Parts: sequence; structure tokens; C-alpha cells
Amino acid sequence: MPPETASSCDVIRGYLQQEDHQALESFIESLSPKETMWAISHLSDEDRHRLICLLSPEEAAELIHDLPSAQVADLLEDIQPAAAAAIVEQMHSDQRADVLEDVEKHHADAILDALPLQTATDTLALMAYSPDTAGGIMVTEYLAYPESWTLSHLIVDLRRNREQYADYQVQYIYVVDDDRRLQGVLPLRDVLLRPAQDLLRHVMIPRPLSVVVTTSLDKLIQVFGQSHFMGVPVVDEEGRLLGIVERASVSNAEGARSDNMFLKFSGIMTGEELRSMSLWRRIGGRLAWLTVNICLNVVAVSVIAVHQDTLAAAIALAIFMPIISDMSGCAGNQSVAVSIRELVLGLIKPNEWLRIFRKEVIVGVLNGLFLGFVLFIVAWGWRGNVWLGLVVGGALGINILVGSLVGGLLPLFIKRIHADPALASSPMLTTITDICGFFLTLTFAAMVLPRLTP
Amino acid sequence: MPPETASSCDVIRGYLQQEDHQALESFIESLSPKETMWAISHLSDEDRHRLICLLSPEEAAELIHDLPSAQVADLLEDIQPAAAAAIVEQMHSDQRADVLEDVEKHHADAILDALPLQTATDTLALMAYSPDTAGGIMVTEYLAYPESWTLSHLIVDLRRNREQYADYQVQYIYVVDDDRRLQGVLPLRDVLLRPAQDLLRHVMIPRPLSVVVTTSLDKLIQVFGQSHFMGVPVVDEEGRLLGIVERASVSNAEGARSDNMFLKFSGIMTGEELRSMSLWRRIGGRLAWLTVNICLNVVAVSVIAVHQDTLAAAIALAIFMPIISDMSGCAGNQSVAVSIRELVLGLIKPNEWLRIFRKEVIVGVLNGLFLGFVLFIVAWGWRGNVWLGLVVGGALGINILVGSLVGGLLPLFIKRIHADPALASSPMLTTITDICGFFLTLTFAAMVLPRLTP
Repeated sequence: MPPETASSCDVIRGYLQQEDHQALESFIESLSPKETMWAISHLSDEDRHRLICLLSPEEAAELIHDLPSAQVADLLEDIQPAAAAAIVEQMHSDQRADVLEDVEKHHADAILDALPLQTATDTLALMAYSPDTAGGIMVTEYLAYPESWTLSHLIVDLRRNREQYADYQVQYIYVVDDDRRLQGVLPLRDVLLRPAQDLLRHVMIPRPLSVVVTTSLDKLIQVFGQSHFMGVPVVDEEGRLLGIVERASVSNAEGARSDNMFLKFSGIMTGEELRSMSLWRRIGGRLAWLTVNICLNVVAVSVIAVHQDTLAAAIALAIFMPIISDMSGCAGNQSVAVSIRELVLGLIKPNEWLRIFRKEVIVGVLNGLFLGFVLFIVAWGWRGNVWLGLVVGGALGINILVGSLVGGLLPLFIKRIHADPALASSPMLTTITDICGFFLTLTFAAMVLPRLTP
Repeated sequence: MPPETASSCDVIRGYLQQEDHQALESFIESLSPKETMWAISHLSDEDRHRLICLLSPEEAAELIHDLPSAQVADLLEDIQPAAAAAIVEQMHSDQRADVLEDVEKHHADAILDALPLQTATDTLALMAYSPDTAGGIMVTEYLAYPESWTLSHLIVDLRRNREQYADYQVQYIYVVDDDRRLQGVLPLRDVLLRPAQDLLRHVMIPRPLSVVVTTSLDKLIQVFGQSHFMGVPVVDEEGRLLGIVERASVSNAEGARSDNMFLKFSGIMTGEELRSMSLWRRIGGRLAWLTVNICLNVVAVSVIAVHQDTLAAAIALAIFMPIISDMSGCAGNQSVAVSIRELVLGLIKPNEWLRIFRKEVIVGVLNGLFLGFVLFIVAWGWRGNVWLGLVVGGALGINILVGSLVGGLLPLFIKRIHADPALASSPMLTTITDICGFFLTLTFAAMVLPRLTP
């Protein structure tokens, strides 16, 4: 049976019914990470709960390794703190911190209480770093030895703790001084090639590339883009070694950030929703934005309310107003998207409003002329009234220009005041284009009202 | 002077004026990739042209290495085919193919004609693969040797061609049989540790991980996610070695795809726009979508045209109709975004419409009840007419449900018919929610018309 079919879920359910731990484990091991994710998110809350409880903590940690951390957090909230802590203990340090940040406060505290003291302290320290920095992404599983050790000391330690180190991504040995300040690195290869009595201080590569714990994700993406290292050491202000940022963690963080941006841009205010999440979280994340939006809408349509006599006199305008507001919103959103992407790529800086203005004004004028002309023809042809054509065509043309300019500039402005352009740009834009579109249409109409009414 | 300030562009312009090739070169080398990208995209077309012509082909290729390929394509279209070919020859094989795909057909042909025959043939072969497959991402710079060679043969070849291989990402040596079928890999480390007279066949790791040339980007992301290899060999159906997919190329392709999705979702139909592109390409990419949108809008508002007598009788409806259509569009877009992301993550499959229906129906009903009630209160309070409140509140509530359901299901349907959900979902959704919103409002209003008019 191919594991891609919908029934991988059914197979798991079957084994859960039989409480066949052995078969369950080997079936799950046969699934690819993507299939595992799919199967887990399709189990009922109850089955998921039973599955996690039936597996050993090691197996459970392995199972949920690739799930989005919001989903792991949901799973952990449903089980006893002691059982959750046992699973959390088996995770890598970075995932541990990410997941506990997503777990509700009082659950997280209970889990931290149930962890061994050292692990809890380390995890709290990692949780204190902002998730978009080296500190928030690094792992604390790495190998560091004093520079005064010999290679043979090191090899003895490696052999003795082989089991503990088995999960570490060991490509480099880090060499530190008595204050744990990073002094050098030693590629694992060199450990084999050099005489065993050499001191680490003499065989290490001194002054290695390292990043400070507050280094931003953007900077890390750049560092890994320019090098072929699998990991880069993270140090504090005094140069003391704190952890390792791995290449894979940086790619994952980059992917998570762009997913988050996409969802925020589409009005999921929390930046995260999976359909396996609880109903109230899903509704909350969506309503938060829809409630803001209804207020913005009321502001926008109050322009219509003020001019409703004009509208009543020339009811045909009501047919064209939705076209004008929607088209200008679309044109503006195109500019918003290009600005957000150029900001992320670093192709524009938040103070370059003059450049954006120059680039958007010409696109806005030409698109506005073209589309305004199209609507002029449509309105004139449909209603046989050239004045109606002029009113709606003119309003659309000008409003397309307004949308392009405002859309291009808004993300820069929002970035400058340190808010999130992905979240705020699009709603602010459409409110402005709605207000402006209604105002232009009804004002132009009022100017030629006698010629609009039959 | 910090190179981050706006003047890195001015510095380059100054050196261009003086034609100071030396200073220009060392200044550009001092810039980070991000600063280089910023500076290049801020030069005028003319200055960019002069810069590329002043640099040697090697330096020019180095300079444009990190630019989006659409921008590189623009640069190459502006210079003589022979000069462009000299630069293209210095690129890595994968970038060469990507860039030439973005160059206009007749320019690309001229550049291919000016390339050495072998390079042109290889590039055309790479261009034939779809960009989202192993073939489209792989590089053809790799080291492969016959299994009958000894290690000492290999070492002699490595030393002799050191210069040519300098740019290769050499972590592994690939071992092939007489038909170029992949037989094994040899980590570079093992070349040093084994006796020089050993045959490659005896020291290689046999049956290495490899991917077929048609492997999809999704599958590659998964392969690299599960392993720590820096590169994976690509073979044809018969197992013959064709190239290497590098980890960095997969991350880049993944990033490019999500950028592309974001821009398409925002109505840039070509999926690519940078403000440094030519005006006509930028206008074309935006108008393509706006022209489709105006047609969709005309379809949607024809519902208003049909019911315009109702509207004229109760003009207050014109104030609420934009709120109803905008809110339902927003609610639907939230569902669209969650579905698109879950499709990309593999958490839902295109045939799971029943699951999406069940998940969205409850969110839609609850959000619809809440927001419908809010609008009922607003309309009743504002106009003092409870029937008006019922009409617009009821229409909004039902239309929020429609938007959530249609928004959740549309991406699955569009994916099933093998179109692009990022591009088509949102416009189709808002057309449907507009039509449905106008229809519900005006139909309900017609039913209670005598009570709406004062």
C-alpha cells in the first residue's frame, strides 16, 4: 500500500485501537517527514493524544520534529506536564525554546517546572532571545574544549561520550580559553591527521568567523550565503561561546518568516493558522483583523453617506463605484507587494520615498489613462451618456494613480515607524483608495449632475 | 565612509566618470552582496551599461552573481552579444541557463551564437529542463572519474586542473562506469586517507543517494531536509550522471518560488517585478492582471444593474454594499491564504474538499454571525430602521460564510485542474463574493422594500 494514500491515517488509527506499539512505531518510521506531518494533522485531537502517550518520549520527539511549532505546542498542551516535559527534554535546544514560546503561559511554566533544573535554565535563557536573532535560532549542542588540551585528550572524551554526542551536528570542534572565549575551530578532519600529542591551541584555526548573539536573521542569511559553513559559532559581547547557528536552522527561520508574512498580508493577524489548530484560536486570529476592517470600511463609506443625494439622483453611479474602488485597491496592492519585496531584498531603503514616487508616478499615470479610458468607453457605451463616462473614467484614472503612489510609499512609511509592512499596508491602502474613489466619483458627479440625470 | 550610505552609488558614478578601472574594481570588492545589489539597482541604465563594459568579463560575472536573474537579463540585453557572451561564459552553468531563459528570445539566440559551441550546447540542454526540477537547478561543474582509475591518477588530474576546478564546490568525487553511469561517491577526505594505488572502485561508497533529472523541487527540499549533504548527484533514467544539485541552489529556488507566489498573489501576473526593470515590462505585468480584473468587475456589478430600481428606492443600501463585498472578500482571502500554505506544506491534498468544508463551515458561521450582528447594529443605529439592519446584517453574515467556504475550497480546485492557486484564487474569490453580496443585499431588500423606504 503506498503511504501517500489517504489511509496512512487509518493505519495509525488501527494500530492505536489495537494498542500495538511495535507496529505503530515501525509504520511511522516508514513514513517520510511530509507524510508524517500530513497524517498527524489529520488525526482527531483524541487520537493524536493517544498516539503521543503510547510512544516513548524519544519516539514522540522524533515524530513531531518536523511539525510547525504552533502544532507541537497544541499537542503538548493536551498532555500531562510531566509527560510533556519528558518529550521536550528529547528535543534539540532550539526547538525546545521555539515550542515553549508557543505553548500557553501556564502550561509552559508547568512543563519548565517538570524539566531538570539545568535544562529548564538553559531553555529559559534561549527563550529570552528574540526569535529573529542568532540567539533565537542557535542550538546549544556543540563540542567545545579548552585550548590547553591535547588531541588525545579530546579523542578520549569523544569516544567516552559518543552516545551523548550522536545527535550533535559535529563538523567542527570549537576551542575556548579559560573564560570560554572562542579562540579557534578545528575541522574534525584535522583531528585525524595531526599527531595526538599536539595541543589544540597549536592545531586550531585561530580567529574563526563568529556572530554576536544579537545578529539579525537578515545578516545570518547573508553570512551563510557567502560561505559554505554548515554552522557558525555564536558569541556574547565578550566573545564567550554561547551556541552554534546551523545552516538548516537559518533556512527554516527564513521560510517561517516568509510564511508568516504571507498569512499576515492575507489578514491572519497572528501570522499563523493551521486547520488542525483549535477552533477558537483560528476564529480569534481571523476576527481580530475582520473587526479592524469593518471599522475601516465604515470610515470609507461615510463618504458615500455624505453625498447620498448625488447618488440618489444618478443611481447609475452605484454600479460603477465598486469597480472604481476595487480596481484602485488592486493597482495599489501591486505596488505594495513590489515595495515589500524590495524592502526585504534590500533593494530599497525606508528613506527612498523620492525614488519610489518617481518610479510609481509614471506607471500610475499610464495605467490610469488606459484603464480610465476603458471604463469611459464601457460607461458611455452601456448608458449612452458621455458625461457619465467622463465622471467614472476620470475618477478611476486619477484613483489608479493615487493607489499606485500610496501603495508604493506606504510600506516604506510603515517600516520607518517600525511597524510591520506586511500586516498594515494593504488595509490602510484599500481604506485610502476607497475613500478617495468614492469622493472623486461623487464630487465629479455633483459638478455635472444635470447632465447625468435623464 | 560607510558603504551602507546612499553614496556607494555616487562613488561608483565618480569612478565611472574618471574611467578609473582599478579603483572601481577594488571599491566594488569592498561591498557586501546586499550593498552591491542595492548600488547596481540604483544606477541609471546608462551607468550600469558603462560599468559592465568597463569591467572584465570575470569581474562582471562576479558582480552580477547575486542579482535576481530578471535583472541580469535586462543588463545583458543592453550590451553587444559578443560582450554579453563573454560574461555569460564566466557564470556557473545553472545561472547561465536561468539568465538566458529570462533574456528576450532574439537576444538570447545572439548570445548563444557567440558562445563556444560546447558551452552553448550544454546551456541549451539545461534550458530544456523545467526550472522547478532537479534538471533546472543542477550545475554541470563537478568531478567524475572512471571506476578503473587509481587514486594516484585522480590526484594527478586534480593537481593539473587545479585552476579550472577552483570554482567547483568540491566535497565529493563521483565515480562512473564506462557509460557514465553513477557507481559511487568518494568524500574528498578519503582521497587523502587511502593508499594511492587503490582503485576508485574499491574505495568509493557504492550506490550513493542520487535523484532523477525530473525530480521536483518539493522532493529536493525534502531530500536536503533529511540529510546533511552539500550536494546530490543528478542522473537520467539510465542512471547516467548529468550534474549536481547543490544545497544552496535548492534554498535559492525555494526562496524564488515563494517570492514569485507572493507577487502573483498580489496581482503581478508575471510573478516578477523590480523597479529597476524597464517601464514597459513593469506596466505590462501589472496591466495584464488589471485588465482581467476590470472584466471580472463588470460581471460582478451587472448584478447591481439588474436590481437598480431596488437600489434607487432605498439609496441607503449603496452605503452598505461596499462594506458587504469588501468584508466577505477579506474573510475569503484569509481562507485562501491558509489553503495555499497548507497545500505548499503538504498538510492537505487537492482532493480533501470535505475536510476543508467541515473546517471552514464552522469558522464561517461563527464569524458571519458575529460580523452580521455588528453590521445589523450599525445600520439600525445609524438609520433607525430595523429592516435595513436585518437586510444588510443578514446579507453580510451569509456572505461571510460563502467567502470562507469558497476561499478555502478554490485553491484545491485550481490545483486539481493544474493551474496556479496563487495567481487565480484571490480574483476568482472576490468576483464570487461581490456577485453574491450584491445579489443577497438587493434580493433581501426587494422582499421588504416598502419597509425600507421612509
